[in-house]
Amino acid sequence: MSEALSSLAATLSLPLGELEALVRAVAAAPPPRDDAATLALFGGALSDDHRRLLTHAIDTARAAIEPTPWTRDRVVGLRDELRRRNLSAFWVPRADEHQGEYVPAGAERLRYSTGFTGSAGAAVFLLSRAAVFVDGRYTLQAKQQVDAGTFEIQSLTDNPPIDWLKSLLSGKTDGIVPKDFRLGLDPWLHSQNEVKSIEKELGKLGAQVVLVETNPLDASWAQQPPTPVAPVFPHPTELAGKNPDLKRHELGDELLTAKVDAALITLPDSIAWLLNIRGGDVPHTPLPLSFAVLHADGTVDLFVDPRKLTEPTRQWLGAEVRLHRREALLGLLGDLGRSQLRVQIEGASCPAILARTLEKAGATLVEGKDPCQLPKARKNATELEGIRAAHRRDGAALTRFLCWLDQNVLARASSGKPIMEIEASDRLEAFRAESPLLRDLSFDSISGAGAHGAIVHYRATPESDAAILPGTLYLIDSGAQYPDGTTDVTRTVAIGTPTAEMADRFTRVLKGHIAVARAIFAHKTSGGQLDALARLALWEVGLDYEHGTGHGVGAYLAVHEGPQNMSRRAVTAPLEAGMILSNEPGYYKTDGYGIRIENLVTVKKAEIAGGEKEMLAFETLTLAPIDRQLIDVTLLRADERAWVDEYHAWVNTTLAPLVDSVTRVWLAGVTAPL
Amino acid sequence: MSEALSSLAATLSLPLGELEALVRAVAAAPPPRDDAATLALFGGALSDDHRRLLTHAIDTARAAIEPTPWTRDRVVGLRDELRRRNLSAFWVPRADEHQGEYVPAGAERLRYSTGFTGSAGAAVFLLSRAAVFVDGRYTLQAKQQVDAGTFEIQSLTDNPPIDWLKSLLSGKTDGIVPKDFRLGLDPWLHSQNEVKSIEKELGKLGAQVVLVETNPLDASWAQQPPTPVAPVFPHPTELAGKNPDLKRHELGDELLTAKVDAALITLPDSIAWLLNIRGGDVPHTPLPLSFAVLHADGTVDLFVDPRKLTEPTRQWLGAEVRLHRREALLGLLGDLGRSQLRVQIEGASCPAILARTLEKAGATLVEGKDPCQLPKARKNATELEGIRAAHRRDGAALTRFLCWLDQNVLARASSGKPIMEIEASDRLEAFRAESPLLRDLSFDSISGAGAHGAIVHYRATPESDAAILPGTLYLIDSGAQYPDGTTDVTRTVAIGTPTAEMADRFTRVLKGHIAVARAIFAHKTSGGQLDALARLALWEVGLDYEHGTGHGVGAYLAVHEGPQNMSRRAVTAPLEAGMILSNEPGYYKTDGYGIRIENLVTVKKAEIAGGEKEMLAFETLTLAPIDRQLIDVTLLRADERAWVDEYHAWVNTTLAPLVDSVTRVWLAGVTAPL
Repeated sequence: MSEALSSLAATLSLPLGELEALVRAVAAAPPPRDDAATLALFGGALSDDHRRLLTHAIDTARAAIEPTPWTRDRVVGLRDELRRRNLSAFWVPRADEHQGEYVPAGAERLRYSTGFTGSAGAAVFLLSRAAVFVDGRYTLQAKQQVDAGTFEIQSLTDNPPIDWLKSLLSGKTDGIVPKDFRLGLDPWLHSQNEVKSIEKELGKLGAQVVLVETNPLDASWAQQPPTPVAPVFPHPTELAGKNPDLKRHELGDELLTAKVDAALITLPDSIAWLLNIRGGDVPHTPLPLSFAVLHADGTVDLFVDPRKLTEPTRQWLGAEVRLHRREALLGLLGDLGRSQLRVQIEGASCPAILARTLEKAGATLVEGKDPCQLPKARKNATELEGIRAAHRRDGAALTRFLCWLDQNVLARASSGKPIMEIEASDRLEAFRAESPLLRDLSFDSISGAGAHGAIVHYRATPESDAAILPGTLYLIDSGAQYPDGTTDVTRTVAIGTPTAEMADRFTRVLKGHIAVARAIFAHKTSGGQLDALARLALWEVGLDYEHGTGHGVGAYLAVHEGPQNMSRRAVTAPLEAGMILSNEPGYYKTDGYGIRIENLVTVKKAEIAGGEKEMLAFETLTLAPIDRQLIDVTLLRADERAWVDEYHAWVNTTLAPLVDSVTRVWLAGVTAPL
Repeated sequence: MSEALSSLAATLSLPLGELEALVRAVAAAPPPRDDAATLALFGGALSDDHRRLLTHAIDTARAAIEPTPWTRDRVVGLRDELRRRNLSAFWVPRADEHQGEYVPAGAERLRYSTGFTGSAGAAVFLLSRAAVFVDGRYTLQAKQQVDAGTFEIQSLTDNPPIDWLKSLLSGKTDGIVPKDFRLGLDPWLHSQNEVKSIEKELGKLGAQVVLVETNPLDASWAQQPPTPVAPVFPHPTELAGKNPDLKRHELGDELLTAKVDAALITLPDSIAWLLNIRGGDVPHTPLPLSFAVLHADGTVDLFVDPRKLTEPTRQWLGAEVRLHRREALLGLLGDLGRSQLRVQIEGASCPAILARTLEKAGATLVEGKDPCQLPKARKNATELEGIRAAHRRDGAALTRFLCWLDQNVLARASSGKPIMEIEASDRLEAFRAESPLLRDLSFDSISGAGAHGAIVHYRATPESDAAILPGTLYLIDSGAQYPDGTTDVTRTVAIGTPTAEMADRFTRVLKGHIAVARAIFAHKTSGGQLDALARLALWEVGLDYEHGTGHGVGAYLAVHEGPQNMSRRAVTAPLEAGMILSNEPGYYKTDGYGIRIENLVTVKKAEIAGGEKEMLAFETLTLAPIDRQLIDVTLLRADERAWVDEYHAWVNTTLAPLVDSVTRVWLAGVTAPL
């Protein structure tokens, strides 16, 4: 094997070490659905033998970096590092340098150091104690995953790390002397605002914050996966709807107007949007991890691993995008500072080290929102066309799945070999994967049978995998990434005959969904003002749900994006034409069942004859039948009933040509007027 | 006269100078409806002659301090003062020391210095230019009232004083050198937060903020009315529902728990609530201007003009309320500081001078909401009983007015002597004044005929007074202060036959009103989340209104109080049981007509059988018929129609025993089911 690799290295004129490193870095990215683009990163024309060899090598490397179970020596190793560096404590956040929802394998520091696998949390290690911080959804999971002898478990919301540290420091805790207390932070992993606030709070108590030069956990993590290398590829203008030159120059002009010389962009989905590129460094979101500096003249300095870029992608980026290795970032920021430039950063997401490097070198920091966020959120007409196409494709797959489920679930249950949660979501994925355009799921599917449906962020595992049985509800929340759009849809279906209570609850959730879908609202209305519409029918009978009604969604980008949102928190970002949100009210009966009805919607101008003011409305994008068996028609008003019938007629007309004949017949039935 | 006063002074054993000062101070308060309590401030048993003499003297003094028209020499006088003090500019806010909506005559500095009489605004005077800042509702009025040769008019919202000053300082404006620029602020009139922010902004530009020891405008205002003296009287526990001892000790305990030694209270309605006292220093809100320090031991230092206090009131306040002259406030704050106490202030309302005096003397400032605000907002059962009684009384008066209007308006119009706006509101006041319990109106009535109804804050003047004519709408927004409650109600009535458009708009406003009135909502819901309910039926056809849907209301206190609110602004204060809000959606057609339907509502627990979570709902308090002629029944859903019928049945049943027989017959007709 190693001999074969040596021969391949020679063929590719690549030092063996570099080839091996590239194999490992490629293996650190999520496995691609189509590996041709990945293999192209190795350059040259590869023989079939070479392809097989590389594929095998990558698979082997991937297996080698699969997370292994937590062991206590990881904590011992970290504490040794802390002692060597004279640190009293070290804070391990879930975030990577880009504050994203998905992080690459090598940035799974929280998981590595604690064993906790949730998508949000933190840990703080002292020399003789440690705590893991998780929110309400993860309390149970953390208790199962985390070693009680090593960690106490704290509430991320009620007693977050900073409060926990403050009480340790202000209480007379054994062995803790505030003035000798040195808390280590990795300034790549905490934002500028966060570090400022931690420094302020601990400073009050006389303790010290140390921004470490290298991460002590990484130093003790022998098998830490390298930063991932997945191909960066152009996102064509025919899908993006706007040339990246134009985007860069328009935003550059905005900087000019704001008397700012440059903006530092640290959020990879902003960079992907700005340059019309996509990648594959993290699961479920097609983005290349990178940093960028946008200058007021419309040019960009892009900091990205050059191994991710093939020649066509370099061509696509063009001469106005100057390429640098990620390692050159601090140097360039230093140059900007020494030139006394005014540089815009978003304090809430910019790693502290970048802000401080700029400041120390002499730059004037200008606090401002990431300049890409709003234009990225406002989808243009071309993007919306693509997104509608993606929803038709995705709706056809989901509808075929719902038909398959309906036609098999009861027979399978009575045969004693019921359909299981994982089988169901695999089947749905298989339907989606029949399209050559499927690039990825947009998140891990939530396939919840019965009581599992009441766990809002449930993920079926081989241990939890449950049967889908008569007399229950089944909830499936899933989505996909296609080159033309990102989907996210939830359907809840009755398995057999639902109870009257289930139908009552489902219909109330549906009434909320319809109230949002049909709303017409004034300009400058924020999602927070509309959230209550989704809850009224539940509130009326003393029910509610504990999550937001909607989140923003990207265009072949992150399934969660801002600034738009629809929730009880005070969200002030006004809804604007082209924004995409989910509309997903729900109801959850603990240990009973879960209900959620989720469609994506886009904001559009409402055309109103005789109106005095321009109004906005939602256009529903998602296409899939809503389970009629669960609708209590007596609870619907005439206008609500008409909405269901119109929606179903549209679903039927649109999807009928796209599904097989069995599904087509089934679809006509389940979308018939109420 | 002066001789007679001298003799009275002798009788009262009062130096003549003090008597004269007291007469002037009493005259500086709004005229009381019943002057017995006021005359009692002069002490002793007064003969009828003495009463007449005093009343005459007060009337004369009142006439002498009536505002006189603005003249340019006021600005000249101010500028002379500025030059003497080496100030480049001086900022005149609308607020007084208590940041209230109504200010006493001597604090009408904005009006005195600019001629502008609106209820919000500011002015900034430089040596060679000056600007008046007003919001959208006052643009026209400011143009009419303010001398264009002296002032430029700027938007308070788009270009507020601080932005205007910054652009003067950063642009190369003639004669302005930032480093020599000294902006004067009266630290009694600007809050701690405001001064901090002005200092920060101007500091960035190198300019200086000077907190003046005495107000330069006052120095040049020869006839400035003195601070008012109106009697302070007990608000009995049978109306307040809670003994003031208990209030003081409960809040003191809260301070203790929060490890705070004392809280500085600068909002007079908070002090009035805390001590169960009322007063008459400003129009329409029965509060005594005062400052207070609440200590963690439940005692209070109250800073109030002792001339306002009669012996029964002193008794009522008791030994745990230590009385001081207002002049002693800074001294006591200094003492608190020198004792190294932790003192809570509300930075948004606390005059900067008080915060700084504390800080300079060594106090630790603890930022926190005024501790009275929330308990004051949550009315107790006794207060709510009183408020319901006040609404019955007030509803009967309003209903008699509406009957009188209905039965006379067309005949008067065809007789050529139409009912005028001022006549109408005077008539309504007269109906209210038939109750011996009327203490004041709760604000200046808005009596708007036809197009005047579209001016949201219209106030009829002899110049604007318009006839109420057939084919128009008439809008009357008014309220009253009774010892047991504060009311605020708006009705819009058709004069003759309304157009179909009027009925359509009115019915949509009504649908919004009903949606709020009927809402059931979860705990922690804020008014901002419900505001959209009031707008949906208007939004549907491209209409909206540009004001909030609801404001908080006090219990025989301010007609505008916080923290509760219902508006498009992000208001995060959750609605809680006992809070009172207005429910007042509207629609305004400029130069056409105005529609507003306003009832007060209180938040209560919703009793829902079988609900999982405790819910809240509104109980409507206001009683008065809603004009059926303006309701387009075809636009109402069955549940909305039922709400109107139930509301009207309740109005009829409740008010019929309280009105004259003519009104009773009329009321039965106008409240018949739709």
